Amino acid sequence: MLERPAYLALDSDTLPTRLGGRAELLDRLGPPATWQVREVGDGNLNLVFVVAGPKGSVVVKQALPYARVVGESWPMSLDRAFFEHEALTRLGARDPGRTPQLIFFDPAQALLAMEHLSPHKVVRRAFIAGEDLPMLGAHLGHYLARTLFRGSDWSMPTAARKADLALFAGNVELSGITEELVFSDPFKAAPLNRRTPGLDDIAAELQADRALKLAAQEMKARFCTAAETLLHGDLHTGSVMATAIDTRVIDAEFALYGPMGFDVGMLLANLWMAAFAQPGHRADAGAAARYAEGLIATAETLWREFAAEFSRLWGSERTGILGGRDLFEDGGDPAGADAALARHLAQVWEDALGFAGMEVCRRILGLAHIAEFETIEDEGLRARLERRALRFGRHLAVNRRGIASIAVASGLARGAEGQP
Amino acid sequence: MLERPAYLALDSDTLPTRLGGRAELLDRLGPPATWQVREVGDGNLNLVFVVAGPKGSVVVKQALPYARVVGESWPMSLDRAFFEHEALTRLGARDPGRTPQLIFFDPAQALLAMEHLSPHKVVRRAFIAGEDLPMLGAHLGHYLARTLFRGSDWSMPTAARKADLALFAGNVELSGITEELVFSDPFKAAPLNRRTPGLDDIAAELQADRALKLAAQEMKARFCTAAETLLHGDLHTGSVMATAIDTRVIDAEFALYGPMGFDVGMLLANLWMAAFAQPGHRADAGAAARYAEGLIATAETLWREFAAEFSRLWGSERTGILGGRDLFEDGGDPAGADAALARHLAQVWEDALGFAGMEVCRRILGLAHIAEFETIEDEGLRARLERRALRFGRHLAVNRRGIASIAVASGLARGAEGQP
Repeated sequence: MLERPAYLALDSDTLPTRLGGRAELLDRLGPPATWQVREVGDGNLNLVFVVAGPKGSVVVKQALPYARVVGESWPMSLDRAFFEHEALTRLGARDPGRTPQLIFFDPAQALLAMEHLSPHKVVRRAFIAGEDLPMLGAHLGHYLARTLFRGSDWSMPTAARKADLALFAGNVELSGITEELVFSDPFKAAPLNRRTPGLDDIAAELQADRALKLAAQEMKARFCTAAETLLHGDLHTGSVMATAIDTRVIDAEFALYGPMGFDVGMLLANLWMAAFAQPGHRADAGAAARYAEGLIATAETLWREFAAEFSRLWGSERTGILGGRDLFEDGGDPAGADAALARHLAQVWEDALGFAGMEVCRRILGLAHIAEFETIEDEGLRARLERRALRFGRHLAVNRRGIASIAVASGLARGAEGQP
Repeated sequence: MLERPAYLALDSDTLPTRLGGRAELLDRLGPPATWQVREVGDGNLNLVFVVAGPKGSVVVKQALPYARVVGESWPMSLDRAFFEHEALTRLGARDPGRTPQLIFFDPAQALLAMEHLSPHKVVRRAFIAGEDLPMLGAHLGHYLARTLFRGSDWSMPTAARKADLALFAGNVELSGITEELVFSDPFKAAPLNRRTPGLDDIAAELQADRALKLAAQEMKARFCTAAETLLHGDLHTGSVMATAIDTRVIDAEFALYGPMGFDVGMLLANLWMAAFAQPGHRADAGAAARYAEGLIATAETLWREFAAEFSRLWGSERTGILGGRDLFEDGGDPAGADAALARHLAQVWEDALGFAGMEVCRRILGLAHIAEFETIEDEGLRARLERRALRFGRHLAVNRRGIASIAVASGLARGAEGQP
């Protein structure tokens, strides 16, 4: 797809020389001789540099031709930088201000230069530190409603929607990672799986749990076939940076057309898991419980604001071929449009619960774990908290059609120790 | 997409000169000077010629740059010939012998030469004539199972499946016809709609029926977003030619990735509608009832053979990323694979009923009607039979989740006059 005559991975020493000719950077940073470069990537797939000069700072992200989490033995196509750029452009236009500002994209070097978010912190780290992010739920709820609605056939001109579906169908490799690591590996004895000592019994139990495996297969089929909208595709709390007043979504290289509930459910699961992990980060039980309750409340806000903003867009921007305005409002039946909205939100909610269940299981039984659990040094405590989360995740996945509301889900997250 | 330096519609006089240089035709027909050309197209979008020579005969199908059913005022892209060729190639490979053999494709002329099916008859015509097609249900059931299963992520390598999804996402124009004419126009006062006199009351009633309109919107969303497999996309009984011992599927220009239930439901609906139409074609009530019962039995056979063949393929060819063999058979739980199959077939069945309901409504209230009804000259009788069919179609669409089996559906088709 891309011409790449001379891809070469950047390093801190060569970056000023190699990018010093870019006018967009000179404007923002000052002369290359003054640039300070720090490699800050803590993700799994890329190099990330913060480049600072007298006039300001930027972030430079470059894809590596292998998966960093595994090493050079897992080769990966550089196309993902192309898909990330295409996705961030669209997501940023659909909810302006909620993604980093893009400065330039160099396809040959699989390199994206963008706004340096500061003093934003990766949300997982804020959760471990116990910081207050009062706008997080509302910002993410709005972001989800706007991006998911506006990338769909409920809103877009269908020829453009179909062209985007075709474009992102090319993101085979990163979609394949999700297909394997989220929906399959956690539910079998897979070589890449790892887990906290003390969880062998529940891992074996869940990997023999037919109802859970059927749920995993069904959610995988939804992920692969329900091409509703352009998803971020990896929207956990490590892909969000925030301050008390701002929230930004980063790292969109997993973007694909899929079901609306996927992005929603992955965020909900990561909020709930952060709540489960709290006793590992606060010696005071009351403080841990209070912060966990705040995270559960953030999940409630996220869903409620999502539903409210989605409903607003349903009323005002339902211009695509699935809008149905011709049958309802134009046919003198506006209440029919409300009924269609309620059914649609019920499907997104059911999917979100199913995907949330998958996300919980894969973060504890699969390859990629979350910092909120991983940084708990007491392995016995970590295993106990992860076990609670697993029971909760299993319950969401298997019973996703019977959990009537976010309030019910919050109750499950609070009392999960008592769940079967 | 295609270079078309000199597209020109064929006619019977120029065809021998223009195609006389094709070795594939000379081999099959003999010298061009001996060719007899008949234009036989009775479809809506294309020219179709039967070309006969001393050695044999072939069919030449050429796309027109407008929709024939409406006239030159409805321009249409010639790309549909490209999509038809791509689709017939794949469908023919997935169920060999069930599509016409292809001879050559000329993209510049939007022209496909293929086997002349003889003495095959378009199935609708056979139904009007009261002919016996004892293999039809089994052949079509097998065809559906093989093409729908083998074009999906349950079977195919996923990179190839995603590439095909992207390819057929380009078939925007013909998908748009289905989206509009099947799922929207019949349920509102649309300019292209037409109907038998005497149906104004039921048309108004159904166009004000919120439950039916919600079903139409939901089925349209399934059609547009559930990218499960490569569909024929227009698989009614006018797209099937048959003899007592052979069955062929033709006219695949509407091909797209969509839900498995779409092709299944459209065929079922057309079998059931042909049954409803029988009293208009046989003066003897007993003969009409017996032939109608045979059509209902054909629908039963189609579904049962579909389910049986799909189940066989589920056991033997479930090699794609949605197969789940890793979680079930390989995890010592073969019964889990059976449970997953049962759930999948239940979803296909529910979808098929919903799409069948749409097909019935659009063939009576929308633009494109079926010969089985249209050839009934007594308008009062035709309206009475169409009214019964409409009640049945509405019931299928609205109650698709509660019709437990094909036997229940057959009962509804038999007793539809008594339905609410």
